[in-house]
Amino acid sequence: MENKSEYSRIMDILPQEIEKKSFEIITEELGDIVLDKEKESIIKRVIHTTADFEYVKNLKFSDNAVETAMEAIRNGASIVTDTQMAKAGINKKKLAKFGGEVFNFMSDEDVAQIAKENGTTRAKACMDKAAELDKDLIFAIGNAPTALIRLYELIKDGKLNPKLIIGVPVGFVNVVSSKELIMEAGVPFIVAQGRKGGSNVAAAICNALIYMTE
Amino acid sequence: MENKSEYSRIMDILPQEIEKKSFEIITEELGDIVLDKEKESIIKRVIHTTADFEYVKNLKFSDNAVETAMEAIRNGASIVTDTQMAKAGINKKKLAKFGGEVFNFMSDEDVAQIAKENGTTRAKACMDKAAELDKDLIFAIGNAPTALIRLYELIKDGKLNPKLIIGVPVGFVNVVSSKELIMEAGVPFIVAQGRKGGSNVAAAICNALIYMTE
Repeated sequence: MENKSEYSRIMDILPQEIEKKSFEIITEELGDIVLDKEKESIIKRVIHTTADFEYVKNLKFSDNAVETAMEAIRNGASIVTDTQMAKAGINKKKLAKFGGEVFNFMSDEDVAQIAKENGTTRAKACMDKAAELDKDLIFAIGNAPTALIRLYELIKDGKLNPKLIIGVPVGFVNVVSSKELIMEAGVPFIVAQGRKGGSNVAAAICNALIYMTE
Repeated sequence: MENKSEYSRIMDILPQEIEKKSFEIITEELGDIVLDKEKESIIKRVIHTTADFEYVKNLKFSDNAVETAMEAIRNGASIVTDTQMAKAGINKKKLAKFGGEVFNFMSDEDVAQIAKENGTTRAKACMDKAAELDKDLIFAIGNAPTALIRLYELIKDGKLNPKLIIGVPVGFVNVVSSKELIMEAGVPFIVAQGRKGGSNVAAAICNALIYMTE
């Protein structure tokens, strides 16, 4: 292995140094693109998570979405996800410092039961269950368009008033329209327009907000 | 809500129908691009997970990688991931039908301790711990270049002989070189060349392999 010493050297670089260096490279490659101060950390963390600079254009923020979300986290808001993957990716320890926790109901038996009885998605049943929580909530939706649509309905019916909706499902069917819908719900949002997104993007946005609040 | 009936209709479409339709759209948009039969399901599932057609070009397979991995899964091979996110995204129920399980050691106390003592990454310590498992193993690396580098070292030292390495870390520092290195390790691989990848991509490749084996 001719590059042994080079690879040994790489092994000694700690993750926090790599993260710092990564953000420097992202900043450099953004070049002349100027990002709004409050959105910058979020956009860069999503690029860091995806290596995809399209998110500079894709990510849409409602007015004061970041500020509102940070205040909510500071006051102990919890996060609801639509996948176990997104939950796994969120820094739950740091969120807990403010009093918040991360909920995901996708594997719950009652959710499976209700979805089956009604012939609808578990994602919808999860959102209904979340709406019963007596907490300030941020929703991080990286997978299911039906979760976003159900959130819209719950908000319009006066059954839910979330602090923020992160609307970043990925995919080819109903994804774009569900994102357009949630931007009309009248609540703070961060949305990845178009088809792209995912549980990793949802988690990255949550983490950016948590780290900014720190 | 003028489109209420349209959105209600969307709510009644079940996930498996959406997945089917998504794959049809992906096939349609691939147009004249012909994918190797054995790679097709994997490439399409990664596009399904990311909405990113760049993976058509990015994904590299060693000869017989898919065949070897499917045989390993059929014989009860287990999967080791470098993130809890990747573990969360893998269909553990279906893997268990063949006798395999999914391991992730990132949160283990002994791993944190060893990494701290040696001033290196937990990802490296995780790979060392995985190498001690007396099982057939597939490694799904979506995050840490140091995990790939350590796997290369373990293989070259004769301490590990994995059935497949899925090398898809995402990022800007050491990522590309770690992927180039693992392709020279002499073991079956599926690698996402370049900066892109992620825990979601790692999980999608595992799931494609599991579903194909079914």
